[in-house]
Amino acid sequence: MRVSPALAADIIATAHELADVARVATLSHFRTRALTAETKETDRFDPVTAADRLSEERMRAVLARRRPEDGILGEEFGSLAGSSGLTWVLDPIDGTRGYLSGTPTWGVLISVRDAEGVLFGIIDQPYIGERFEGGLGRAQMRGPLGEAALAVRPPRPLSEAILFTTFPEIGTEAEGAAFRRVAPRTKLVRYGMDCYAYALIAAGQIDLVIEAGLQAYDVQAPIAVIEAAGGIVTDWQGRPAQEGGRILAASSRELHAEAMALLNG
Amino acid sequence: MRVSPALAADIIATAHELADVARVATLSHFRTRALTAETKETDRFDPVTAADRLSEERMRAVLARRRPEDGILGEEFGSLAGSSGLTWVLDPIDGTRGYLSGTPTWGVLISVRDAEGVLFGIIDQPYIGERFEGGLGRAQMRGPLGEAALAVRPPRPLSEAILFTTFPEIGTEAEGAAFRRVAPRTKLVRYGMDCYAYALIAAGQIDLVIEAGLQAYDVQAPIAVIEAAGGIVTDWQGRPAQEGGRILAASSRELHAEAMALLNG
Repeated sequence: MRVSPALAADIIATAHELADVARVATLSHFRTRALTAETKETDRFDPVTAADRLSEERMRAVLARRRPEDGILGEEFGSLAGSSGLTWVLDPIDGTRGYLSGTPTWGVLISVRDAEGVLFGIIDQPYIGERFEGGLGRAQMRGPLGEAALAVRPPRPLSEAILFTTFPEIGTEAEGAAFRRVAPRTKLVRYGMDCYAYALIAAGQIDLVIEAGLQAYDVQAPIAVIEAAGGIVTDWQGRPAQEGGRILAASSRELHAEAMALLNG
Repeated sequence: MRVSPALAADIIATAHELADVARVATLSHFRTRALTAETKETDRFDPVTAADRLSEERMRAVLARRRPEDGILGEEFGSLAGSSGLTWVLDPIDGTRGYLSGTPTWGVLISVRDAEGVLFGIIDQPYIGERFEGGLGRAQMRGPLGEAALAVRPPRPLSEAILFTTFPEIGTEAEGAAFRRVAPRTKLVRYGMDCYAYALIAAGQIDLVIEAGLQAYDVQAPIAVIEAAGGIVTDWQGRPAQEGGRILAASSRELHAEAMALLNG
């Protein structure tokens, strides 16, 4: 879709308003003693907090007022069809396990896409007060140290790269084995950062994130932010990753190719 | 040593001044593009940054002015004998790998001890602007959401506990095997948080931290903060942990006992 300057400005302003209301909603329950987790599925641990739902409800209310023609895909409340050709993809709390544990590396993920792909995305960390945004000509962050442009690190060999993932087991046994073909070739592997790891690629701090089992709402905002910063995000076969699945995010095409060859080796 | 109210007040004020200067020093290099890592040992990856040294130098300068009779043990510049019976134990950046990667979960660790043990400690996270302190009658934190008292969670069974550690491999093969006797019995295991995990026990967010290979300067501030909040920190045999080694930190004596039995099972 052709995005006019006026539409771009409205998308960006709306996305920031969504992030603002989600910040208040998520912090209203963060680190409180009464925090309780419900379980979505009985067969595995998947906490969904009151904050998660409140955050998405508040964002949907903003969209109903500001952008009633747009569609919505949210983690908590599913799909709402639109007529404008634009769809907002919302993860009200990415990293609910980290949220429940009081860590500062969960986030709110907000993105908007059209038929061709993701146009704009925000990764927001409410507790730190840090927001990363990319797309529609923007690639910037604002946090405790002020504003900064987002740009990936210069290309470097895999042996000099910093690799992040959230869970050491990655996913299935085969997915874990693929990860372990890459990990020992890097300079450093770190765990446990949820969506914050993607922000660190865009901020030029790390080089690779490899994960599996992601949903569309887990990855579309990171795609927008990382691509705007000069990086690349695909699935493990180099295909578009916006529907989720197995994710390979990299700071350069060279590193992406090197890691992908090992994942499939 | 008997600590008079005047001495306690001076220790606390000095510790906060140390944390303040370390905050400025560490942030002066955090997430900068020129950040380079030197290697202390040729046989393993152990980054030491200019920030690490600057942070400890600034803290030593404060101590030379305010508390010239006290001893110092610092990660970067070793031991300085004192005559007062008090020793400051400083880790100018705990979690240098996390720091190099741009994460917000490294910290500055400051503590002071006498012949009997740790009297007071601070865990400071400069980027978030978050400070946890404990000992000499204090157990509190200050961060983005304001001030709060520190208190561990109410006791709960291991099956309901949240366990953190930094590296999935823990340490030696035997240490990793011991950890894996505990981990599957918990509700949730998370990785990668460095000293921040200890702060989360004191803040009542998580229940257990199990690590190995720690140094005195890695653990003394966490001991002071966690004990002040009502928790317990020992080695894996239940002995005092202030010299480092294998660490078991818990939110309650019951959980500590349950985890220790499995570590040694």
